[in-house]
Amino acid sequence: AESLLRNGQTRSISVDALRPSDTFPRRHNSATPEEQSTMAASCGFSSLDALIDATVPKTIRISDIRLPKFDAGLTESEMIAHMSRLAAKNKVFKSFIGMGYYDTLVPGVILRNVMENPAWYTQYTPYQAEIAQGRLESLLNFQTMISDLTALPMSNASLLDEGTAAAEAMAMCNNIQKSKKKTFLVASNCHPQTIDVCKTRADGFDIKVVVADLKDFDYKSNDVCGVLVQYPGTEGEILDYGEFIKNAHAHGVKVVMATDLLALTVLKPPGELGADIVVGSAQRFGVPMGYGGPHAAFLATSQEYKRMMPGRIIGVSVDSTGKPGLRMAMQTREQHIRRDKATSNICTAQALLANMAAMYAVYHGPEGLKLIAERVHGLSCAFAHGLKKLGTATLQDLPFFDTVKVKCSNAKAIADEACKNEMNLRVVDSDTITVSFDETTTLEDVDKLFQVFSCGKAVNFTAESLAPEVQMVIPKSLVRYSSYLTHPIFNSHHTEHELLRYIHKLQSRDLSLCHSMIPLGSCTMKLNATVEMMPVTWPSFADLHPFAPADQAQGYQDMFKDLGELLCTITGFHSFSLQPNAGAAGEYAGLMVIRAYHLSRGDSHRNVCIIPVSAHGTNPASAAMCGMKIVAVGTDSKGNINIEELRKAAQAHKDNLSALMVTYPSTHGVYEEGIDEICKIIHDNGGQVYMDGANMNAQVGLTSPGFIGADVCHLNLHKTFCIPHGGGGPGMGPIGVKKHLAPFLPSHPVVATGGIPPPENAQPLGTISAAPWGSALILPISYTYIAMMGSKGLTNASKTAILNANYMAKRLENYYPILFRGVNGTVAHEFIVDLRGFKATAGIEPEDVAKRLIDYGFHGPTMSWPVPGTLMIEPTESESKAELDRFCDALISIREEIAQIESGKADINNNVLKGAPHPLSLLMGDAWNKPYSRECAAFPVSWLRDAKFWPTTGRIDNVYGDRNLICTLPPVSQMAEEAAAATA
Amino acid sequence: AESLLRNGQTRSISVDALRPSDTFPRRHNSATPEEQSTMAASCGFSSLDALIDATVPKTIRISDIRLPKFDAGLTESEMIAHMSRLAAKNKVFKSFIGMGYYDTLVPGVILRNVMENPAWYTQYTPYQAEIAQGRLESLLNFQTMISDLTALPMSNASLLDEGTAAAEAMAMCNNIQKSKKKTFLVASNCHPQTIDVCKTRADGFDIKVVVADLKDFDYKSNDVCGVLVQYPGTEGEILDYGEFIKNAHAHGVKVVMATDLLALTVLKPPGELGADIVVGSAQRFGVPMGYGGPHAAFLATSQEYKRMMPGRIIGVSVDSTGKPGLRMAMQTREQHIRRDKATSNICTAQALLANMAAMYAVYHGPEGLKLIAERVHGLSCAFAHGLKKLGTATLQDLPFFDTVKVKCSNAKAIADEACKNEMNLRVVDSDTITVSFDETTTLEDVDKLFQVFSCGKAVNFTAESLAPEVQMVIPKSLVRYSSYLTHPIFNSHHTEHELLRYIHKLQSRDLSLCHSMIPLGSCTMKLNATVEMMPVTWPSFADLHPFAPADQAQGYQDMFKDLGELLCTITGFHSFSLQPNAGAAGEYAGLMVIRAYHLSRGDSHRNVCIIPVSAHGTNPASAAMCGMKIVAVGTDSKGNINIEELRKAAQAHKDNLSALMVTYPSTHGVYEEGIDEICKIIHDNGGQVYMDGANMNAQVGLTSPGFIGADVCHLNLHKTFCIPHGGGGPGMGPIGVKKHLAPFLPSHPVVATGGIPPPENAQPLGTISAAPWGSALILPISYTYIAMMGSKGLTNASKTAILNANYMAKRLENYYPILFRGVNGTVAHEFIVDLRGFKATAGIEPEDVAKRLIDYGFHGPTMSWPVPGTLMIEPTESESKAELDRFCDALISIREEIAQIESGKADINNNVLKGAPHPLSLLMGDAWNKPYSRECAAFPVSWLRDAKFWPTTGRIDNVYGDRNLICTLPPVSQMAEEAAAATA
Ligand SMILES: Cc1ncc(COP(=O)(O)O)c(C=O)c1O
Ligand SMILES: Cc1ncc(COP(=O)(O)O)c(C=O)c1O
Ligand SMILES: O=C([O-])O
Repeated sequence: AESLLRNGQTRSISVDALRPSDTFPRRHNSATPEEQSTMAASCGFSSLDALIDATVPKTIRISDIRLPKFDAGLTESEMIAHMSRLAAKNKVFKSFIGMGYYDTLVPGVILRNVMENPAWYTQYTPYQAEIAQGRLESLLNFQTMISDLTALPMSNASLLDEGTAAAEAMAMCNNIQKSKKKTFLVASNCHPQTIDVCKTRADGFDIKVVVADLKDFDYKSNDVCGVLVQYPGTEGEILDYGEFIKNAHAHGVKVVMATDLLALTVLKPPGELGADIVVGSAQRFGVPMGYGGPHAAFLATSQEYKRMMPGRIIGVSVDSTGKPGLRMAMQTREQHIRRDKATSNICTAQALLANMAAMYAVYHGPEGLKLIAERVHGLSCAFAHGLKKLGTATLQDLPFFDTVKVKCSNAKAIADEACKNEMNLRVVDSDTITVSFDETTTLEDVDKLFQVFSCGKAVNFTAESLAPEVQMVIPKSLVRYSSYLTHPIFNSHHTEHELLRYIHKLQSRDLSLCHSMIPLGSCTMKLNATVEMMPVTWPSFADLHPFAPADQAQGYQDMFKDLGELLCTITGFHSFSLQPNAGAAGEYAGLMVIRAYHLSRGDSHRNVCIIPVSAHGTNPASAAMCGMKIVAVGTDSKGNINIEELRKAAQAHKDNLSALMVTYPSTHGVYEEGIDEICKIIHDNGGQVYMDGANMNAQVGLTSPGFIGADVCHLNLHKTFCIPHGGGGPGMGPIGVKKHLAPFLPSHPVVATGGIPPPENAQPLGTISAAPWGSALILPISYTYIAMMGSKGLTNASKTAILNANYMAKRLENYYPILFRGVNGTVAHEFIVDLRGFKATAGIEPEDVAKRLIDYGFHGPTMSWPVPGTLMIEPTESESKAELDRFCDALISIREEIAQIESGKADINNNVLKGAPHPLSLLMGDAWNKPYSRECAAFPVSWLRDAKFWPTTGRIDNVYGDRNLICTLPPVSQMAEEAAAATA
Repeated sequence: AESLLRNGQTRSISVDALRPSDTFPRRHNSATPEEQSTMAASCGFSSLDALIDATVPKTIRISDIRLPKFDAGLTESEMIAHMSRLAAKNKVFKSFIGMGYYDTLVPGVILRNVMENPAWYTQYTPYQAEIAQGRLESLLNFQTMISDLTALPMSNASLLDEGTAAAEAMAMCNNIQKSKKKTFLVASNCHPQTIDVCKTRADGFDIKVVVADLKDFDYKSNDVCGVLVQYPGTEGEILDYGEFIKNAHAHGVKVVMATDLLALTVLKPPGELGADIVVGSAQRFGVPMGYGGPHAAFLATSQEYKRMMPGRIIGVSVDSTGKPGLRMAMQTREQHIRRDKATSNICTAQALLANMAAMYAVYHGPEGLKLIAERVHGLSCAFAHGLKKLGTATLQDLPFFDTVKVKCSNAKAIADEACKNEMNLRVVDSDTITVSFDETTTLEDVDKLFQVFSCGKAVNFTAESLAPEVQMVIPKSLVRYSSYLTHPIFNSHHTEHELLRYIHKLQSRDLSLCHSMIPLGSCTMKLNATVEMMPVTWPSFADLHPFAPADQAQGYQDMFKDLGELLCTITGFHSFSLQPNAGAAGEYAGLMVIRAYHLSRGDSHRNVCIIPVSAHGTNPASAAMCGMKIVAVGTDSKGNINIEELRKAAQAHKDNLSALMVTYPSTHGVYEEGIDEICKIIHDNGGQVYMDGANMNAQVGLTSPGFIGADVCHLNLHKTFCIPHGGGGPGMGPIGVKKHLAPFLPSHPVVATGGIPPPENAQPLGTISAAPWGSALILPISYTYIAMMGSKGLTNASKTAILNANYMAKRLENYYPILFRGVNGTVAHEFIVDLRGFKATAGIEPEDVAKRLIDYGFHGPTMSWPVPGTLMIEPTESESKAELDRFCDALISIREEIAQIESGKADINNNVLKGAPHPLSLLMGDAWNKPYSRECAAFPVSWLRDAKFWPTTGRIDNVYGDRNLICTLPPVSQMAEEAAAATA
């Protein structure tokens, strides 16, 4: 806008100058128009648009997008007002529904300092351990908590939800039995969503899931690989599984137990009962229900099966100075290494929520948790006792922890009456209700429930008056005697100051977007704006149970509908499912849609999936999980898919071709010109095109998966659509599909879902996630991003992301080879820097460069993927030219340091790169034995003197840690000794 | 609570075990019952209660307190629910009231990362510059912003509000004229609250305030010290003060101008018009209205008057390594040094809000601010133009910036109609309305206003349709041509990532309660709990205009009433005023109440105030501001007031005795046994007892000012009642009084206030603060603290605070002399460590110990006050035994370091203390010339290796900075050169 008062002339006013001024796109997209011109010029283009025109192939270019809503974009304050109106349409009733979701009191200090703190929610997955020791410790706390409470030695650092955790355990049983026993028994006392997720997942593994009452389990076939039981059961009962497990083991059957962490503070733990694998959700440990998620699920097992565990695992190792240090352990187990041999595709998990749950345990400690559990149990008992006294309903007579099962003449009438009192009960069937209690339940709530169940009878007692008569009902044989959470970390931080400082201590060890750009290729670490994050912790979004009646969630439902339609417009698809709660879950869901489609046409034989070798590891893993046969195709010297090879493969598998999985722009950071042809080849041979939407940040407003020719695509909302990475999750991976695939989108056993907008003739493939709309609580982030950017802002984001990548590639090309480029010499939104030559000239590996970048205050780019020996840089549109320049300066300076080795001026084995990163303890030690100076190590460029983020350890030894695997908190004495020994 | 399930026995349930578990006192008060016993035992007492009984004199001990509400204390979740209900009683209408308070859009990134961030709100005033460079830079940004916009070279780092800033300026004029000219002219176009605060303040200085129309100003008497004019005027008009100022100067009269920062982005600045002193509020730069405060006011002036400026001033200096570093400049000007020669008593100011306003300017930059200003002006012009078209009302014809003055037949009817549309207008008189526009106003709002003013007439245009016809109305001669905010800091951080990182960069330089205890004697740096802080940023508390109709602020009004009553119970007083917005403002208000009381009894001659020499500097300063004659009395060797000296003084001044000012427990950290007698002596001689409530943290629940015998007392809510220090404010200093003083409590010209509960026969002394209830927005903090603690929790806080102090004193007494103790050898809630001996034995000054503590990760205690050569330690009840032990360990280790000097093992001039603090840049420099090792400097104790807070500069040179005074951002080139020179 022009200056109105320039030169003091009275002038008339333009309407534009009177419109609200708190517009968002200029806060998100970095480059100003002037900078855009300069930067485009430096890349050899007359304008940004000229650069874009030269980069995005004409054949797939769309003229623009026009969002059905928010076309012009809302301002930040308009957005907050809009979200407040939506929030007001959600009604927060007290939930007694249970079923794996319980209301919980998020301690204020955790809410503000973890969940609402960008220094905790904007970090990347802790691949660069030396600048991630804070959340690594917190995740180790999580694992220790899970291990202690379940009484099993090994835990991972979270899974997506309890349902998929059970499905992962099923796959483990299948693995353990080397896929030779193909039946998996599921007890009917499991949560319905857990059962359905397992059933759906079993399909691809060719496992037969049999749901039955425990007493009807039958191992005679000798085909049973494992069983799943729940403890306590979905309707509350606590069974003693001791004998049952012995019997299963006697038949060579593995036992998976789904459980509840709060109950385990007072119940005999699954490990002591003999369970092989234990799964569950840590939600009720201080993570809001959020209408279904995100929450951290867990999986624990014995030492024996540790290499088969899915997901990330944090372990203890040592650093280059000999001090203990943490890092992700056993990474070779993970899908990106195992590819089509993987049996899990999990990548993004739920780190942030695992950290919250761990901090909750740190705050309460073992005694505090037990008191909460006993209180919840006591309230349940008081309720049960009162109901007996009332005599209006009958109780089941099995022992329970927090859930009371009631038989009554008209369950619906009772539930309706409860609703009038703003309470939600679970109606199991026409004459059965369950009532689940939680940390938030009060004596007054129990009194209200008495009224509801009194059917008009006078209630002449209160929960308080009953208390002295009430008896605990946990059978002696199932009471927990063993201790847990005995480590000092769980016994020292029980005041707010102590926890505040512990949180900040850990935070100070982690590099996040609060410090500098995190230019991870394929990860799109862009701005997670505050206004996008604010609604996430509003109670009217955070405190809804996923199975609350839909009329209490109108705000959410409106948002889902609009978000689905917005995503359809952006992607060129017909319908969206919001259920998959990570990118890889989206891949799996999308392939299952394709599978269902072929099946519906009688093409059950179509099971070949073509995947380029350059694909992300989750692609083959997902395809394998769908039972597909994977055919790899190579790339040419320019990094493009070898089209002739693809054609041959497609033709060869013509009869059985199911799908192609393709990433666009390619994982090599290039807009392949042949993408039309590629899609055509697949379609011509009867296949469907699955597009991996990880690189959507280079498409929005310029092209779209639908326009290009894909049939289905997942979006990583935690990349292009601004959900923060949270240090390794949460994420969301909704999938969009063309019309012919829409009927097959997933549904849910408790709350029927399907495509948005809804298709005709739905034939859902099954259930993908435990919650109907996945991690609903973080959808406001993507929704507000789209709404504030508007059509133009979104398109400019893509353009700016491409501009920033090209600007950096241009600056760096004189120092490092840039690996792949498009036909006009430009790259897409990311690019690959080739370091392979330095191995020979200077003995330098990509890891050395990544670790040296830490000394410059930066997180290394994606390393050795998709091409070994390289770094892949994705700057995103939210990084300023100044920040891009600083990163380039760092890499250029490192190139100079490599040159010193090449020229023999620096020692090939002992130089600033090999020694990197340099922690403070080393730099200010009295001894200094390096052939280079301290200042060279610490301050290689001058701007580091103004502010620098310091690594807290020397380089962590991965091999040592995997050889000496420790995945829970070691005793303090041991850590102190090791640290002291290293210091001495 | 006992474990219910212990040993697996079914047992009955205690009602207590079923009550809500998220109780607050155990999160706030650190010591567990077991720790309490151990710690009491280590002090030689059988129990905590025995220690307390021995410490608090029996004669003043109360048995307990019983709060009229919240006696048992609410849990954290109950508290949030309670506050939500209160919040729902506030109605947020659009405000067009103006009068110094304008709605503003707080950028989300500032809201979340500054206002809601404990790392920004829990720091202390930046006295320890080496661990405060972050907020020092931000405050320097504030000063630069004020200096640039006002075009005057010197600005302070905030004052309490615009009204008191004007009063401070008046006192400066009086000073400049050496108190020889006793008339101060105030233009009637100033805000009414500004006028009243000046009038009240003038009393004590014996200044005559004459309020008159500018054209009636008359300097002939030659008795005029200064004038106050407002630009733009309270009713919107912009006058050209150029000639007026020349004329005033010609008569030797100083000109104070109250102004508006947003207007100054487009209007010729006061400095260019010739103003001598400029004051105003930075509220509309991104600080919520908050029903009146807290906001940062400012005062700018020329070089000539810099030594007379009240308040803290940040300046540039150099550190021990020669690098530029910031610190508070010219501290000798401040009240704590000048005591009864002070002409201002300001101590706690508004640092946090100044930082928010500065960040707002950093985010928008000069261009962004100007666009906002032009938009606001444009909307005002559109409104004015539309009204003219409508013809239903007449406009004043003076030019305006954002406020349009309208004459209409029935102002109240129009305002009522506006209210129906949820809009508040200002009714000036029966036929005059003003309408003020701000950053949040929209075109739609203007259209709604047209409807309101249409009186039923059809409106056939919209603000949008009018735009092309609208003309700007700022006269050419008053348009701003000069540039402002040209420093790169104001021109680089315009995207959210850039600002986020800038905020976090500064944050990383500041030690706060997120890192370690800040045991500042007399400052009570206790926990500022999250639940206490949460309501502060809820829109229904944050977005109310202080002059909004009372029925829109019922939530606030209910809270004021309850808070007043709770404070009455806690203090033993009859009535409270919530108006004073800092402790010193409370002192002044309290003394003015006493003054009014004497006057009401015809005792105008009672003007002697007795103040012990040990009193805080604000005490004599406040008394001086009330025109009182100060008589000092000494203390005895035990630190107690010399009662005989006091008696003599009281008797000597019997006829003119006005008051005694006394702190209890004494500033020496002792419960003086003679306090009863002291009060009696004063009363017997016709005086009133003013108690300084700074040490209230040692009284709550154990005794009370009212019970002890005080007539009036201020409370620093930012000490005992949990308002965070914010790096130097905000604070609140409400005063409580006995019944006979209640009628005199302050009122307000716009919204009448007075005592809570209201007294009979109010005869208010005048107005103390610009806003009726001071900084209302932060009152929820103290209110929730009291409500969650309940009667018992509060009493336990006092006991624990005393315990913690005694525990530390006991641990330290073998290493350092502890200066004063009570009759039974105990100290109160704080104690003094005597360092005076080390000057002779080791050449060590208290500053050396404080700076060395920084190397141990701690903020130094209060230094050389109340006794030169000492440190005063106040641990508070929120610090765990572990933290107390760490602090003691640090001091004990430092004692050992001193011993090394004493024994000659360490150099007396060049040792770890003299060299402290040791910044990173020094520790990892290649050169190391110290006689001690790097590791001794950096890691003198082993726990520092786990986590340490690092100073970012070497010791800052105060003298150099005061000699070379620079109080705005120096050019980058200069800073870089100096830094480089120092590094080289
Ligand atoms: C190209 C690509 N595909 C798929 C994924 C998997 O997504 P998620 O981690 O959300 O499961 C990633 C994650 O980085 C990716 O980069
Ligand atoms: C004893 C004493 N009195 C008065 C004050 C002044 O209070 P304030 O800083 O809130 O103006 C202080 C502040 O530290 C103090 O310690
Ligand atoms: O975790 C990833 O592979 O991005």
